Amino acid sequence: MNGGGATTELEGCVVHPDLLSERKKCSFKVADFTRELYGPLHFDILTKLRAALSRNPAFDLRYLWGADGTTKQYVRACWLAEEVVKVIRDLKVMDIEEAIGPLQILAGEDMFVMLHLTMFLPTLKNMCDDEQAQYWVPLAKNFRIIGTYCQTELAHGSNVAGLETTADFDESTDEWVINTPSLQATKWWPGGLAKSSTHCVCMARLRIRGQDYGVHPFIVQVRDLNTHESLPGVTLFHIGRKLGYNSMDNGGAQFRDVRIPRRHLLMKFCHVDRKGNYRQLGNKKMLYGTMTFTRKQIIMAAGPQLAKSVVIAIRYSAVRRQFAMNLKKPEDMMTEKGEEVQVLDYSTQQFTLFPILAASIAYTVSGIWMDGFYADFMREAEKGNFSKLEEIHSVTSCLKATISLAVADGMEKCRKACGGHGYLLAAGIPLQFANFVPVATYEGDRVVLSVQTARVLLKVVQRKMMNKRQKYSLEGSTLEYIHEFDPFQERKPPSLGDEKWSDAEWILHAFRQRSCTLAYKAAQEYTEILGEGKTMMEALDEVKIEFARLSTAHSHVIVLQVFLDAARGVRTPEVRSVWEDLWYCLALSWMDEFFSEFLIGKSLSSDHHESLMKALKSILRKIRPNAVAIVDAFWIPDQLLNSALGRYDGRVYEALVNSTKMEELNRTDVPPGYQEYIQYILHPERRNSRDTVQKEGYTVSKL
Amino acid sequence: MNGGGATTELEGCVVHPDLLSERKKCSFKVADFTRELYGPLHFDILTKLRAALSRNPAFDLRYLWGADGTTKQYVRACWLAEEVVKVIRDLKVMDIEEAIGPLQILAGEDMFVMLHLTMFLPTLKNMCDDEQAQYWVPLAKNFRIIGTYCQTELAHGSNVAGLETTADFDESTDEWVINTPSLQATKWWPGGLAKSSTHCVCMARLRIRGQDYGVHPFIVQVRDLNTHESLPGVTLFHIGRKLGYNSMDNGGAQFRDVRIPRRHLLMKFCHVDRKGNYRQLGNKKMLYGTMTFTRKQIIMAAGPQLAKSVVIAIRYSAVRRQFAMNLKKPEDMMTEKGEEVQVLDYSTQQFTLFPILAASIAYTVSGIWMDGFYADFMREAEKGNFSKLEEIHSVTSCLKATISLAVADGMEKCRKACGGHGYLLAAGIPLQFANFVPVATYEGDRVVLSVQTARVLLKVVQRKMMNKRQKYSLEGSTLEYIHEFDPFQERKPPSLGDEKWSDAEWILHAFRQRSCTLAYKAAQEYTEILGEGKTMMEALDEVKIEFARLSTAHSHVIVLQVFLDAARGVRTPEVRSVWEDLWYCLALSWMDEFFSEFLIGKSLSSDHHESLMKALKSILRKIRPNAVAIVDAFWIPDQLLNSALGRYDGRVYEALVNSTKMEELNRTDVPPGYQEYIQYILHPERRNSRDTVQKEGYTVSKL
Repeated sequence: MNGGGATTELEGCVVHPDLLSERKKCSFKVADFTRELYGPLHFDILTKLRAALSRNPAFDLRYLWGADGTTKQYVRACWLAEEVVKVIRDLKVMDIEEAIGPLQILAGEDMFVMLHLTMFLPTLKNMCDDEQAQYWVPLAKNFRIIGTYCQTELAHGSNVAGLETTADFDESTDEWVINTPSLQATKWWPGGLAKSSTHCVCMARLRIRGQDYGVHPFIVQVRDLNTHESLPGVTLFHIGRKLGYNSMDNGGAQFRDVRIPRRHLLMKFCHVDRKGNYRQLGNKKMLYGTMTFTRKQIIMAAGPQLAKSVVIAIRYSAVRRQFAMNLKKPEDMMTEKGEEVQVLDYSTQQFTLFPILAASIAYTVSGIWMDGFYADFMREAEKGNFSKLEEIHSVTSCLKATISLAVADGMEKCRKACGGHGYLLAAGIPLQFANFVPVATYEGDRVVLSVQTARVLLKVVQRKMMNKRQKYSLEGSTLEYIHEFDPFQERKPPSLGDEKWSDAEWILHAFRQRSCTLAYKAAQEYTEILGEGKTMMEALDEVKIEFARLSTAHSHVIVLQVFLDAARGVRTPEVRSVWEDLWYCLALSWMDEFFSEFLIGKSLSSDHHESLMKALKSILRKIRPNAVAIVDAFWIPDQLLNSALGRYDGRVYEALVNSTKMEELNRTDVPPGYQEYIQYILHPERRNSRDTVQKEGYTVSKL
Repeated sequence: MNGGGATTELEGCVVHPDLLSERKKCSFKVADFTRELYGPLHFDILTKLRAALSRNPAFDLRYLWGADGTTKQYVRACWLAEEVVKVIRDLKVMDIEEAIGPLQILAGEDMFVMLHLTMFLPTLKNMCDDEQAQYWVPLAKNFRIIGTYCQTELAHGSNVAGLETTADFDESTDEWVINTPSLQATKWWPGGLAKSSTHCVCMARLRIRGQDYGVHPFIVQVRDLNTHESLPGVTLFHIGRKLGYNSMDNGGAQFRDVRIPRRHLLMKFCHVDRKGNYRQLGNKKMLYGTMTFTRKQIIMAAGPQLAKSVVIAIRYSAVRRQFAMNLKKPEDMMTEKGEEVQVLDYSTQQFTLFPILAASIAYTVSGIWMDGFYADFMREAEKGNFSKLEEIHSVTSCLKATISLAVADGMEKCRKACGGHGYLLAAGIPLQFANFVPVATYEGDRVVLSVQTARVLLKVVQRKMMNKRQKYSLEGSTLEYIHEFDPFQERKPPSLGDEKWSDAEWILHAFRQRSCTLAYKAAQEYTEILGEGKTMMEALDEVKIEFARLSTAHSHVIVLQVFLDAARGVRTPEVRSVWEDLWYCLALSWMDEFFSEFLIGKSLSSDHHESLMKALKSILRKIRPNAVAIVDAFWIPDQLLNSALGRYDGRVYEALVNSTKMEELNRTDVPPGYQEYIQYILHPERRNSRDTVQKEGYTVSKL
């Protein structure tokens, strides 16, 4: 059985027989799976956008294979940017907040326009008071200005309070004066700031009459809207080439006495009047709300990003064949070829790829859930209710930290699973990885974010241990299970034979117990260290390793719960059954990976490992016949996969050979470099001799 | 205390005060450490080569930051290649086999000349009979020909027996006729084959009168020595840009009836006479000896490669400061700056970096040991004694697989430990990672190699279980402990309190027990599956996951043993004590990472984890004051680190700002791309209007 949209753009092509037979043997309709995965709203937007982008050459990413320097890539990104803006203008999608996510995925490349949409515009919406919003939001929505979010400095990233850029109030002119007072204060990293943005939200220390009120958001124009030249007092520059993500012009900025009106301070959560009186409004932490919002966006995009790599690896593994299974002796491997097997049939390949496949679905589903959770929170915050602030902070922090790392690692595993050919840019995964991997660092790396997460969990533990009422009701929240846990209960792992690898609730319970054990142990250790007279910051440092592990464990509980709920809610029974297989695959593979933590949590004993591996291997075999159809269901066009190995038609070897036609060095037989250098390696005497003749442009020795 | 060569090239520069004070507080002399690390012979060669390269602009790698397309990078590699050859000719190092390793490290970039030295030349030495060697080796040694090793095809890598390229014997002319009979048979990947090599050792199916004798090495000329044009029947091309390693022109080749003399079959391990009679000589597996040799080379280079990244990460962590530790409440982090701490003081940073630091030393030492082991083996093989063939195969396989993966992962961890700035090419680590990571795949990936390793271990187990005599004496070998293990002995983990984290022998014993348990369990499972009537290949597949884990465990035993022996042999007591700290750091961090396998092996119980972490954290604190001096001791010149963050003088922010001067896009304020695209995003009406004026080259609207 097969069906659905995935084949539309490939009509007329000859599909590799191995993929044809894979697609025949699957147990569900691909289109049903796709609709469940993205949900009705996202699916509609995706369909609309796909249609708009599919025939536009700007969205053909193949040029990336040749990646010839930052300048060319940047100009190409400008082209893509203008086309993205045209699509938005044509389809009038800008009032559909939800389109930004799918658009980001479908554009394939991240560049200034994307950052404008995912950071600048939301910051204006969330930080402007009503009057300010009326002025700025339409300008940004209509791209009459292009903006970015300007926070990180050369010497300060994680430590926001350490930022050095200043905004001093000049009462005489009713203006702020912006300065980067040292080399270290140079703004460094904002995407689009180098060459593209006309404006930025600049985070700077708000000072009035010498008093420092901490870091606040100011809107600062950096380029002339007419000429695009940088404005007086503003020095802008490109911070240089990166491992990937080179379509984005990450920039540096220095400000020298740049004056902006008082009302360019974004005043939703604070207010400064004409006389320089400062007033805080609502919750102070909302001043940093852009980081929470951005983490939410990262979580939403992560699953679909990972999907691209796993689609490539699974399709390629289905057409790549290596070694025969019917040989009598392993020794024969060296001499006999035999009938070779699909690489996807190897247990190790399934063990590597299927948990990543399952994770890419789990993360996609979790992203959609996160988006809804965040929207609920913001609705309440608008009404002045910040009771969920701690939870939203802990959930976005821990999911961002864990998922971004897991996606980067997963991509690299997919790449390695493609063997040698996976290293070619033509394979697609190398640039997907290189472009994605900074996500694991920006907007908070794992250590910093896991401290944030763990502190919220520890508060729950501490209030419980001290028999204090929890600050807010935890019922139905992601923190409830921590509160419910009884640390004093005597625990023993089940006897051998009592483990239940096909009971989702039993498994989830083990995940919760692991997480709770880590939380209560960390809390205990932290309290003990404090008791030894260390400062809170020192004590925090001593349990940071444990915090990072706790944060991962907590994120597993959330993702598995969300994914399980989603799987149970799938309407088509055939698809539901496949989602359940994937759920078990993910849960059991995490149990294997973090097995010792389950032992420490007394959910399992070491003797259970054997049956765990048996259960996992049996799920892998169950998923195997559906694997290709599942990746088809991600419904990612070839154009976006940008991969000779992941093509829908599976004609990988022809595609690889074709890809070499784009390589500059193939324009001539004898390469540049021969005449200048290589000939003198082979014929050193030519360096000191005139005894040479010229032949077809190359110097040749008479000998 | 400080001293030694590491400072020589930096005289006169102002060193960051944090690094100055780090260097003052170390407990040993840096030069003593350096000499112990590389051993007297390598140290001398290194000194000689460093002096020769340090003032040569070709060895300045900074141009890589700009990485502007394959062609320019290739021409640059040709320049570097000619300079490398000049150094070799000048210093006459070509008779010192040992110089190739240091040279490869010091050149910084891998390109065709390196491959010529590390694969082509050794293949000639190992595969030619005496007469052939007399002809070919001097040509290659004097670079009168440039060669590569040509094995992998488009459709076959790991499965060497599946290669399709053919060499048919034509008795009438006494020649071989080489053909790539299909698209899939296209040779694909050989380094230097695209544009640089004049010759290659081509692996092809040797056929005589239709009989197929399997894959054999033939020497084939591919380019004219005078004009460098590719020869008739030979189609050569570049296979396209890769994630990294783009100084190497990896190539593809198709052969159409290319004729070479009969004596171009390399005839040390086989012989074909004028009448086409085939005879095998010595051990058939030696035909694939180049792979073993290359794995050995990879193991030798891996430690020093990892060192580069860890030097950068540790120096940067010593000058980067973030967050204050003396704040009263964690909440103050958001508002108060305080006196910030060196990032290297954070427990998580030490937990990430110090085990990698220890590993880079352990791998360096293991590489030198591996080199000696291989040399001994080859000496015996020359005499016809192949008794160590199995062991050398298993050791090179498992060390190559584990170490190459660990180095790639370690580099990426070092990069992430540098925070956001680690993502800039100017940080140095991105390209180190991107260039190194294919090593984890080529010459055998983890799965393929761990099967090779595990099969050798399983043979030992099986002979023991069947009470058969081991094929050769295992005494003093890396396999002995597997043989010594008694699987029937009842085992119980020590009681709480009986663990001995500062007893190296006790720890090593636990590592052996873990490895043996995995080996005997895998053997048992394998036998059971065979008993169910599956073929050997199927049974092998079902335990491959376990084999991969076993292979890692076995490699840990080898590396820890070699490193411990080396540490104990260090002559300077202060250095010895530091090496011992590093040994414990590595061993305990592996114990933590693979904790569940120690539980399964009954060496530990889950309750031991707490004291393990305490012991590990205390070793990390012990290493902390020496960390900067230890990385200084690697004695890697700034030129080779090629990093704004890892500089010996620690002036990272100035270096970052300086690095942006090389960025093309910084040549103009208004960027290329504005006139063509960005202006129409901001002013869409300009697309359809002539109402514009020209100003300084840019189109500006009159409004």
